[in-house]
Amino acid sequence: MISKTLIKEFETLLGAENVKTQEADRMAYAYDAAVLPPVLPALVLKPVNSEVLGKTIRLCNDNSIPITVRGAGTNLSGGAIPLSDGVVLLTAGMNRILEINEADLYAVVEPGVITAKFAAAVQAKGLFYPPDPGSQAVSTLAGNVAENAGGLRGLKYGVTKDYVMGMDFFDVNGDLIKNGSRTVKCVTGFNLAGLMTASEGCFGIFNQIILKLIPPPAAQKAMMAVYNTQEGSSQTVSDIISSKIVPCTLEILDNFTIRAVEDFAHAGLPTDAASLLLIEVDGHPAQVAEEAEKVEAICRKNGCTRFQAAQSAEERNRVWEARRAALSALARLRPTTVLEDATVPRSKIPHMVKAINDIAKKYSLTIGTFGHAGDGNLHPTILTDKRDKAEWVRVEKAIDDIFDVALSLGGTLSGEHGIGIAKSRYLANEIGASSIAYCRKLKKAIDPNNILNPGKVIGV
Amino acid sequence: MISKTLIKEFETLLGAENVKTQEADRMAYAYDAAVLPPVLPALVLKPVNSEVLGKTIRLCNDNSIPITVRGAGTNLSGGAIPLSDGVVLLTAGMNRILEINEADLYAVVEPGVITAKFAAAVQAKGLFYPPDPGSQAVSTLAGNVAENAGGLRGLKYGVTKDYVMGMDFFDVNGDLIKNGSRTVKCVTGFNLAGLMTASEGCFGIFNQIILKLIPPPAAQKAMMAVYNTQEGSSQTVSDIISSKIVPCTLEILDNFTIRAVEDFAHAGLPTDAASLLLIEVDGHPAQVAEEAEKVEAICRKNGCTRFQAAQSAEERNRVWEARRAALSALARLRPTTVLEDATVPRSKIPHMVKAINDIAKKYSLTIGTFGHAGDGNLHPTILTDKRDKAEWVRVEKAIDDIFDVALSLGGTLSGEHGIGIAKSRYLANEIGASSIAYCRKLKKAIDPNNILNPGKVIGV
Repeated sequence: MISKTLIKEFETLLGAENVKTQEADRMAYAYDAAVLPPVLPALVLKPVNSEVLGKTIRLCNDNSIPITVRGAGTNLSGGAIPLSDGVVLLTAGMNRILEINEADLYAVVEPGVITAKFAAAVQAKGLFYPPDPGSQAVSTLAGNVAENAGGLRGLKYGVTKDYVMGMDFFDVNGDLIKNGSRTVKCVTGFNLAGLMTASEGCFGIFNQIILKLIPPPAAQKAMMAVYNTQEGSSQTVSDIISSKIVPCTLEILDNFTIRAVEDFAHAGLPTDAASLLLIEVDGHPAQVAEEAEKVEAICRKNGCTRFQAAQSAEERNRVWEARRAALSALARLRPTTVLEDATVPRSKIPHMVKAINDIAKKYSLTIGTFGHAGDGNLHPTILTDKRDKAEWVRVEKAIDDIFDVALSLGGTLSGEHGIGIAKSRYLANEIGASSIAYCRKLKKAIDPNNILNPGKVIGV
Repeated sequence: MISKTLIKEFETLLGAENVKTQEADRMAYAYDAAVLPPVLPALVLKPVNSEVLGKTIRLCNDNSIPITVRGAGTNLSGGAIPLSDGVVLLTAGMNRILEINEADLYAVVEPGVITAKFAAAVQAKGLFYPPDPGSQAVSTLAGNVAENAGGLRGLKYGVTKDYVMGMDFFDVNGDLIKNGSRTVKCVTGFNLAGLMTASEGCFGIFNQIILKLIPPPAAQKAMMAVYNTQEGSSQTVSDIISSKIVPCTLEILDNFTIRAVEDFAHAGLPTDAASLLLIEVDGHPAQVAEEAEKVEAICRKNGCTRFQAAQSAEERNRVWEARRAALSALARLRPTTVLEDATVPRSKIPHMVKAINDIAKKYSLTIGTFGHAGDGNLHPTILTDKRDKAEWVRVEKAIDDIFDVALSLGGTLSGEHGIGIAKSRYLANEIGASSIAYCRKLKKAIDPNNILNPGKVIGV
């Protein structure tokens, strides 16, 4: 319960227009993109500059009020779901790109900058920010850093973590903590920027982030390979990587997903295919030409029935728009969409694809599978209706099985969606009780009142 | 003081041959490569497997005995200098490469694997491990991770941090903590592997490390550009990066260093040059050819008096051997060599080079400057004699000035050598007292008896 006096204090500090107390206003911040019950926050705050942000955090800590920071709320593991006695802290009021440095290949941003807007601003300067999570059109950079967001280009260009050069962030006392630098190399002090990346709001609150930029590839080529068996496409993925080609993007769609996308986006996908691969190589034009040729040979060796290279930028865009439509296309088929991201070493993709099919059969569920096959990060997507209690029990068992298989193949619970509250009960299966105890000690030392997104990742 | 009973316990646990008690034996572990007074450890221990390592750590913690882990002792900031009442824990007994996975592009190693041996084993499998710190011939992989070691290829390929996919490590209780994965993407739990990287032995002790591998570049071309002004070479560095070429390596040597190297290695370097650049581009052959051509044009535009490309692998090796000889060549000229690594954004290299020259004049010191100009990581090397007290006072003032200039240019105290004890008194200048307080809280939570390399980075 936040007292009226305290609300007044927040209004004085932030400006009344940046303090939302009405239930109708707060309702919009009760959930994220995970399939989890909404929780209405007590208050929603939108600080509009660093100074106000620091003081807001301090005021919350002094009053032991839990803070859940919210960018665009695209989180898929419940990390942005607040506590009922807590505040939601919006980053939307701090959304400036402070610097894009072309000579030194970095940018400095505020937390609330939209990923795609940033990537476009960087591109306009002739540079490249590779991380491209599925939610990039609306997701924010601080949200991406807090979750260590991945995307389609992970296998060649890495994930958000690989582009974080430094940052400053507020601790619970509202003191500014600085780590990293505008330089390529920096080992000055412990790697707090590393700890903050993927911290899901549990160790501090971002103020500014320094991101690495790179020169863009000179050329790229997008290709589509069609298979009438799942084995053919998944073996192709494994063979491409083994042959020491690292495509920029290497995506897989199963038949169910293909049909859903085609029905939704009319992109000309082959609805009778068992599976298809969408592949893009990039780099120097000569390298692109050679790699594309090798990729085609590997696809054909593995029995692809059709192979097609995009002949224009327009054709290329159509391919990627179809892929990006996969989740939306699936989501409209049933009331509830459970999107998982258990990840395995890439050579285990054939095993994982087969296991997911077996699990779908075992529990009589509809699972569409697509995702970033090139980095082992599949998205088995269970289409269901949470109100159907009998089916939901089977869904939960299927999720358990998917995680078990991923771990047994040397994989991980989450490639890019985070643990949040959706997967925290599985965490010990992978990292063990000692690792969780280690994390809890760190968390308690930094956040003794447990106000920084309490309950996320490591439970309470 | 470690009791005889406890020494017996260590002997039972590790085997008597892995417990060194004699002063003559311990003497070899009293120092590292930093210019700092040696400290004789009470005991030197060499665990030969995981189980023994875990139990050794637990026994130390139960008896509040400080542990300083030692790989090859090449640390340049005193991080491997032990405490007089502490043990040195050698990683040399755990030096196996456990796996090099060609299909999934990773390797699993024990802490004591020698960097260069690992790189060669990886190369033999047709893959590439890029981090190449100057000490690679003897340094160990866990030492590299603990320091987040850099090297010559940092500007294009990043530093050690960029190749750490996961690890397990022991906490002070001897419990194994697991983080990261064999998968390209993993966000399961907080980023403890990030925290451990650059932790200088303060948060845990490595048991196994998972490292990322990449396909090697198909071609490379090494070039040398000779200048009769320092301005010409340093402006070239800045211009190359601004033109969106990222060489694999871009090194600078000043006249003093050139003469020292030539005198030492007889590599045919132009001893009358004010400065020279050693540049290597790599990638697809067509890209290499184009970039080499552009690099040459930029060098000539900035007034290089001679430009030479290596015509054979042998010539190429000669160039890099000469560069790698720089520190040894300088070190033999005077009794004491102070090697710094203050780092600035790359575009500030011209300012930094000029400032170092001014500082040398101001304090009447000999400073040879060479280093990784392409990532802003210069190595101003002060040649002195620590026994000359008057000169040593000037050396310390010069170091203060070098750090001040680096920070004023938006740079950092240390690009790749770490803070250790050599630079801990400067740390607050860069990151501020709040950041140090934050780090101390983390450290205390994880290591309440302060046994993990106490006093390093953040003081006691």
